[in-house]
Formats: sequence, C-alpha cells, structure tokens
Amino acid sequence: MAAPIDFYFDFSSPYGYLAAQKIDALAAKHGRAVEWRPMLLGVVFKHVGTAPLVDYPLKGDYSRHDMERSARFHGVADFHMPSRFPIPTQAAARIVMWQKAHDHAGVPRVAKALFRAYWVDDVDISAPDNAAAVAAKAGVDAAAARTAIDDPAIKEALKREVDGAIARGVFGSPFVFVDGEPFWGLDRFDQIDKWIATGGF
Amino acid sequence: MAAPIDFYFDFSSPYGYLAAQKIDALAAKHGRAVEWRPMLLGVVFKHVGTAPLVDYPLKGDYSRHDMERSARFHGVADFHMPSRFPIPTQAAARIVMWQKAHDHAGVPRVAKALFRAYWVDDVDISAPDNAAAVAAKAGVDAAAARTAIDDPAIKEALKREVDGAIARGVFGSPFVFVDGEPFWGLDRFDQIDKWIATGGF
Repeated sequence: MAAPIDFYFDFSSPYGYLAAQKIDALAAKHGRAVEWRPMLLGVVFKHVGTAPLVDYPLKGDYSRHDMERSARFHGVADFHMPSRFPIPTQAAARIVMWQKAHDHAGVPRVAKALFRAYWVDDVDISAPDNAAAVAAKAGVDAAAARTAIDDPAIKEALKREVDGAIARGVFGSPFVFVDGEPFWGLDRFDQIDKWIATGGF
Repeated sequence: MAAPIDFYFDFSSPYGYLAAQKIDALAAKHGRAVEWRPMLLGVVFKHVGTAPLVDYPLKGDYSRHDMERSARFHGVADFHMPSRFPIPTQAAARIVMWQKAHDHAGVPRVAKALFRAYWVDDVDISAPDNAAAVAAKAGVDAAAARTAIDDPAIKEALKREVDGAIARGVFGSPFVFVDGEPFWGLDRFDQIDKWIATGGF
C-alpha cells in the first residue's frame, strides 16, 4: 500500500475543519490512509510573520464570509462560527498526540469529535477540561485524556510535531503532503486528487 | 443581459495571469460580459498590512512551486516565472485605463497582451516604453499609449480605480465580483461558476 497522506491541521482553523470532513474520502478513493497531524497555527504564524486571517483589514471580513460560503459550497451543513475565535488549541492537540501514542487507530475519531465540538457545538476546546470531556464522549478515558494535556512528554511530542511541520514547510491549515508534494488549503484538494490519480502532473 | 462580472487584477500577479486565461470563458458560459479592472497590489498590500506572497518564509517557496503547478493543473501551458518578479505595474495599468476611456471593446485584447508579455515572453512591462510597445503590437497607437502613461488624468483615473477597489474590499489578485458577491483567487472560480448558475448558494 502506498504511503499515508499527511494531513496537518489546527483545530481553530475553519478550512482545517472543512478539510477534515473531506480528507478521509479523498484518501480512500485512492487507497491511501491518512495520518492526522495536529499543529499550532500560533507558532507557525510567528515563524512566518503572518497573523490570523480575520486580523487583517478587508481580508478579515471577506474570510468570515468565505468560510460560511465555502462550507455551503462543499456541502458541509454543520458549520457555525464559534463564539470565541480563534482559540489556542494546545489542549486539543495534546489529546491527539496522546491518542496517537496509545491507540493510533482511534485518532481520526477523536480528532473529528474535537473539531465538531468547536465548529458545530460551540464548545471552547481551549479549556483542558472541555477538551478532555469531548474526547471522553468519543470513547477515550476522560481522566487519562485530561492528565495527558499536562504531561511533559506529550507537551514535548507536540512541540516536536510542530517544529517538524515548520521544518517541512507547513505555514497554514490545512496542509497536506502526498509522497512529499505539499498542498496548502482545502482549495487544493482538486489538485491532490489529480496528483494521486496521475502520479503527479 | 445581466451585469458584467468585475475582474480585478494586477499584472504582476501570477494567479491574476492564470485567471485572465479563464475569466472570459467562465463569463461567456453564463452569458455575462467581463469588466477588466487593473489595480495595484502594492497599494492594496500597504492598506491591508500584507506583503507579496514570495516575501514570506515558507509561504514564499511554496507559492513559487504552487504557481507553476497551478498553471499545469489549469492547462495553461504558457507560463514562465519572469526574471524580475514582482514588478510595479502602474505603466501597464494606466495603458488599460486609457484604453477603457477611448476603446472599451479593445480592453481585454490589450490587457491579455500585457499579461502575456510579462508571463510568457519575460518582457519587463514596468518600463513605460516596454509597456507601450506591447500595447502597440496589440493594435494600439504606440505614441498615444506611451503618452497616456504620464497623463495626469489617466494617473488620476487609475488612482480612483484602486481606491474604489479597496473601498469594495479588494485585498488580492485576482478578485471578482458577481452581482456584488466577492470572490478572491483563481481557486474560487468553481464557486463563481456555481454562484452564477444557481443564483447564489
């Protein structure tokens, strides 16, 4: 079987959320697995010298409009701008890193639950207790998930993951690698589809 | 007939060039005309607080790669990164503003010739003499085009056009309005297509 697709995302990224609704089907279509890789846009933006989309004049207003329109365009009915946006996503990302270490197969389920809590149910998953409760509803041991958020080894694992993402050139969310080829944004999913189908173009 | 599609672009924008190869067919499919509207990304970026894509760490390298890949993906065989990039585009934009005033029907022909000179033939159209020579090859009176570049009335018309673009929310290139609905980027052409076909979604 060909190598998995690397899917980098930040839980606070609207286009990351939309992409998370699409990536499994896209990969499955081509017989690929997906490696879900949480990262932290705050760290990435500091490295690149950019800011959250909504912080820019003009671009911010457009982006808020485009997020909702893109959700409709891509058929994602469940999409609601959270009351608090953007948020720090260390807690949620650490739960995923911990999940990776002890039950890799459950990662997509837990990641999707965290995405859904924030983008559909307006749960502020920046709060460790909230993030752990969401993971628990997705079948994870609640106490273990909550402990993982403050575990130095998990913190270090996430730091390495984010540093590794930056070292590979990740500067936004979603960001996908297919056999080393980088694609930024949900709006490159059509190129990803063609890239895998044709072996590059 | 329905209102024309407003197509804002900067001649120095690679995605603007690619979009310029696609916009007429997209509009014609829906019985729409296209209003070609040159603007100046330098002025826009100053207003928004952004910089040219290629100036950002990571994003710059990715973008150079993505421009060439996107050209192939969209079937635009004629695409070559110019020796000098980005460039100031006042001279080319003023020729288009002058063309608008005296022969509106010829605007797409002249605009496409200027785009092609820069993105295919590596002509530095920031130089007024070069821009005027390109326009001349597209059937425009060479001396008149060259004079227009320094004409205070044409300068003022372009300034108004750019100010008007910013007032409407334009922060990048290409930028399209369909019946007031804003779309940024070639990668929103699929949404534009659906938007016109369905009357909004």
